[in-house]
Amino acid sequence: MFHTLDIIGTIAFAISGVLVAISKKMDLFGILIIAFVTAIGGGTLRDLLIGNTPVSWMQDMTYTYVILITTVVTILSKSKIDYLRTSLLLFDTIGIGLYTVVGVEKGISAGLNPIICIALGTISACFGGVIRDILCNEIPVIFRKEIYATACILGGLCYFLIQNLPIDNNVVFIIAGSVVIITRLLAVKFKITLPTIYKD
Amino acid sequence: MFHTLDIIGTIAFAISGVLVAISKKMDLFGILIIAFVTAIGGGTLRDLLIGNTPVSWMQDMTYTYVILITTVVTILSKSKIDYLRTSLLLFDTIGIGLYTVVGVEKGISAGLNPIICIALGTISACFGGVIRDILCNEIPVIFRKEIYATACILGGLCYFLIQNLPIDNNVVFIIAGSVVIITRLLAVKFKITLPTIYKD
Amino acid sequence: MFHTLDIIGTIAFAISGVLVAISKKMDLFGILIIAFVTAIGGGTLRDLLIGNTPVSWMQDMTYTYVILITTVVTILSKSKIDYLRTSLLLFDTIGIGLYTVVGVEKGISAGLNPIICIALGTISACFGGVIRDILCNEIPVIFRKEIYATACILGGLCYFLIQNLPIDNNVVFIIAGSVVIITRLLAVKFKITLPTIYKD
Repeated sequence: MFHTLDIIGTIAFAISGVLVAISKKMDLFGILIIAFVTAIGGGTLRDLLIGNTPVSWMQDMTYTYVILITTVVTILSKSKIDYLRTSLLLFDTIGIGLYTVVGVEKGISAGLNPIICIALGTISACFGGVIRDILCNEIPVIFRKEIYATACILGGLCYFLIQNLPIDNNVVFIIAGSVVIITRLLAVKFKITLPTIYKD
Repeated sequence: MFHTLDIIGTIAFAISGVLVAISKKMDLFGILIIAFVTAIGGGTLRDLLIGNTPVSWMQDMTYTYVILITTVVTILSKSKIDYLRTSLLLFDTIGIGLYTVVGVEKGISAGLNPIICIALGTISACFGGVIRDILCNEIPVIFRKEIYATACILGGLCYFLIQNLPIDNNVVFIIAGSVVIITRLLAVKFKITLPTIYKD
Repeated sequence: MFHTLDIIGTIAFAISGVLVAISKKMDLFGILIIAFVTAIGGGTLRDLLIGNTPVSWMQDMTYTYVILITTVVTILSKSKIDYLRTSLLLFDTIGIGLYTVVGVEKGISAGLNPIICIALGTISACFGGVIRDILCNEIPVIFRKEIYATACILGGLCYFLIQNLPIDNNVVFIIAGSVVIITRLLAVKFKITLPTIYKD
């Protein structure tokens, strides 16, 4: 199940990359690169920071094949995708939910402090979107009004709060991931934002 | 003493990140990220390049706590910070002075050529500010008119010139760091800039 | 011969960095940094991704000396360089041709899948130019109309197609590199571009 959710997250991030790249009038190759970077950027930075090299997508071809297929399918069904924006938000949110928990668990395996593990989970979930936006000359998603990385941090905190309860590890995984997903969906639905400090 | 100066540098960089992020109207989370990236960016790239992973801030929680506290305190005392701009330049300059020498010494420990050690020291000192500026859509600090990285290079050169003299290693550290600090402060005070090649 | 071509590639990338930095009115130090980043950026990311640290340019001083000398000579002969734009395209193209094959071979040494090796070769060839353009606030070269990374991918594919033929490894290297070079030169000459998806 772990791997299935991971693939769904990769697909969702790849789709979001394709849509942004098309809106920027990039050529086919540019679209493919943005899809790839969005899907594997966060995991790559996570692996580099903890010294897990060659990085994951170089060792497991599944990611590459999934991204290639997703890109082709998304381009071919572009005219229908516009109706899918809501599903996309859902997929994307499932993606950051999952990537957060995967990142947290990688940090635990590397013997890191819980706070660092939560940071690592957040980096895994958010960095792909940040690179996508920098390459496309947009303000990075985590700096916009919408709650994004905050949801990942809450999910990571939840993971450590319930980790020592007498429940199965898969359940911990699902609950922590769900916290990310529900937090973000509620924030988007009710337009909840974090306060800013700036005063005119 | 080494660690104390290191913490002062981290605090100074975190403050500079908070101030830039506030001026960009970022939300609380964006401010925290920019503070963090500014403070640990240079050391992280240094660690990645020489293969020292997990990177330093993942192994020593002091950095994380210091940055969190600094960010909160800076936000709470924002109205007073404006009077602190001169002190900030001083702190920031102490920061690059220290990070330069720390980077040089890490390079020596890794058995690298002196020129590479100086490059590593300069990267440690400057890269946090570069990422901060890229994320905030500003021209990176090292490419602006003001002397910045040049001061780090001079400090690094000084380190190797006096390293073999019969003086204590702590003294070498202080002298080389002071060269960075004095060079930058003099350059700012007397508006010394490097020449450009561009002709209209 | 391998090393000679590698140096030619490094020189070409350094020259291209100097020219872009001058056109952005950077000071002497900014020019040097952009030259350096353009020349070693791709190889550095390649080394980080496969875990080859300290990265190559930190272990072999030849790159540093070549980049320093190239930068000085290019600045001094700036007025003549304008006549060299055509040669520059040639040098730059030789550069990506060579860096592609070097990257592919590094991937093979690390025991990676052929598709990943081709990606690694393309990253080696293109990433220096991408960082140069991001630092200079330009749209990254690989996302512009001109064929660029596509030539690298074709060269990488060619490498694996002819690799098992009964020919010398040096010949495989030359043929694959030539595919990159010829593809790009033909694409520039005949203004061949990849199609885009965007419709108004």
